[in-house]
Amino acid sequence: MTYNFGAGPCILPQNVFQEASKAVLDFNGLSILEVSHRHKDFVAVMDETIELVKKVLNVPDGYSIAFLQGGATLGFSIAALNMMRSGKAGYINTGTWASGAIKEAGKVGMNVNTLASSEDKNFGYIPKDFAVPSDLDYLHFTSNNTIYGTQYQKFPKYSGSIVCDMSSDIFSRKINVADFDLIYAGAQKNLGPAGVALYIVKDDVLSQSTSKFMPTYMDLAAQIAKGSMLNTPPVFSIYVSMLNLRDAIANGGVAVIEKENNAKAELLYKEIDTNPLFTATVNKDDRSKMNATFLLSDESLKDEFDKMWNDANIVGLKGHRSVGGYRASMYNALPLSSVKVLVDVMNEFTRSKG
Amino acid sequence: MTYNFGAGPCILPQNVFQEASKAVLDFNGLSILEVSHRHKDFVAVMDETIELVKKVLNVPDGYSIAFLQGGATLGFSIAALNMMRSGKAGYINTGTWASGAIKEAGKVGMNVNTLASSEDKNFGYIPKDFAVPSDLDYLHFTSNNTIYGTQYQKFPKYSGSIVCDMSSDIFSRKINVADFDLIYAGAQKNLGPAGVALYIVKDDVLSQSTSKFMPTYMDLAAQIAKGSMLNTPPVFSIYVSMLNLRDAIANGGVAVIEKENNAKAELLYKEIDTNPLFTATVNKDDRSKMNATFLLSDESLKDEFDKMWNDANIVGLKGHRSVGGYRASMYNALPLSSVKVLVDVMNEFTRSKG
Repeated sequence: MTYNFGAGPCILPQNVFQEASKAVLDFNGLSILEVSHRHKDFVAVMDETIELVKKVLNVPDGYSIAFLQGGATLGFSIAALNMMRSGKAGYINTGTWASGAIKEAGKVGMNVNTLASSEDKNFGYIPKDFAVPSDLDYLHFTSNNTIYGTQYQKFPKYSGSIVCDMSSDIFSRKINVADFDLIYAGAQKNLGPAGVALYIVKDDVLSQSTSKFMPTYMDLAAQIAKGSMLNTPPVFSIYVSMLNLRDAIANGGVAVIEKENNAKAELLYKEIDTNPLFTATVNKDDRSKMNATFLLSDESLKDEFDKMWNDANIVGLKGHRSVGGYRASMYNALPLSSVKVLVDVMNEFTRSKG
Repeated sequence: MTYNFGAGPCILPQNVFQEASKAVLDFNGLSILEVSHRHKDFVAVMDETIELVKKVLNVPDGYSIAFLQGGATLGFSIAALNMMRSGKAGYINTGTWASGAIKEAGKVGMNVNTLASSEDKNFGYIPKDFAVPSDLDYLHFTSNNTIYGTQYQKFPKYSGSIVCDMSSDIFSRKINVADFDLIYAGAQKNLGPAGVALYIVKDDVLSQSTSKFMPTYMDLAAQIAKGSMLNTPPVFSIYVSMLNLRDAIANGGVAVIEKENNAKAELLYKEIDTNPLFTATVNKDDRSKMNATFLLSDESLKDEFDKMWNDANIVGLKGHRSVGGYRASMYNALPLSSVKVLVDVMNEFTRSKG
């Protein structure tokens, strides 16, 4: 048994792996890898995956779903291109991915206003007090920051359009889709394997772009008109996403998942806060329930602690170089029991130090 | 046993499916779907896949390999963006995909000169006599046309840069990479499953673009500098591509594959040409060895013929609506024995008609 705390691509439910493995050998008589995307059996997969996204997130009427390639990184450009009106947008900079979104929006000609940033404290908090000009094409933020372990517990309000990169916490908690004009998310955390990105877009904002530059692949209106089959979609990644969403429904949907994620986060942060050998890197209010970042109080104990969790078959715990220390990613598929294993190791480690 | 003549995503070797299926359950202790792309085991996969491409295609020094998402359709834009110098390019229009490349180049601001087109005969041939201005940024063509069943048997010559979309016949025959500045190809024919596209680019042409617009994801120099890991790559599609290229090497490489493809095409076209109930849609000189398109001489026999090949467990034989009739795709992994099954059905059909 391996306990995979990796930041992504990450753990998915074991039964999803089982079913995906079978489909590589036999999906209605062919391998899922050799089925035409135009075949009715795959069209049914695409349709079901779209319906499952709508069901799990309670997506209201007037929104469409697309599955594109290129991850959130291409999404940075796609978001800016599709939402460009006057050409002025507001961004909140909460670290690496938010910074990337800012950079890419600028690269497609957007005049980017960075309205707030937590760079002053190595992105260890979520900025809260900032003014938002009323004339923005949209306000953009990143809901969860894998690298720095921060997460919006309450989303910013804005009377205009809101665009959100939810790559690392979509499907982990209830959201009110109606608050957003565009949500985009790389799949490889709580949706499916790497290779597909989800777009949830308000129909009203489609085809309104003023950008002179718009490759058809990046045009959400064109993609949605073709049902994400403008060209060959990433068949297998979508298929596995469908399996995973079916599993989410079978397990009670996002309300139950959110409760479990809260319990996991509570357990781990309690240990970090009470164990004298560890310190959290993030403000209590802004801590991510997906990625808990923490440091050793005494760096000289590193080798000893590393040996202990490695011996316990924990993998993926090394922190990102931007923060150092440790990062425990607790995506949907990671059971509470795995968090208990980690907490026990932390406990045992401290006991062994007397 | 199913005989999959589908146009793509298409058949791959059965042992590749077997190994891929296993890796979904166990790739060094984790599912290949939950392995971080930064893990040394996946970095090794990426490295090996790049080396295998170089080996199989005999890629000379001075060329780099990248694996991106978005298929050849995003590739249409990527090619034009990265190769833009003065902003004038020449394209050969051989149908749907070539037309798409022309359209997308125009959309990113390229002044596109369509130097030749076979539209006058429903793209049933490859244009050969055309002048190429000397001042183009590049000459672009599509090596094989899945929909119309045409294929360049000899590539056009040009003293300047040549860019080629080889999506549907790369790895099917020997090519001289040094003749091209940029080759791009969606994976889902002879490389791997859908969800990844291959770029082979001459290092000299990188970072020379004059385009004002260049999302980082689409910048080949940036992608190659990061080893195709600018963001999370499509892990599974690359892994399966590696398995498939290993299989290609184990089976003698592209020289042996080409011989087999020639034998398959010869067998099928001979039947089409000699069987009075069928007619080819393409000029003899320009026929694709990947996708053979043919019509029934008498359309009223359609239901009867369709029943026969369906009963023989042949799938994917229906022609594209642009051409009608039938299309037998004979990608690398389709064995000669499968072509024999089809030829036997065609023969038997004609015999049964007396």
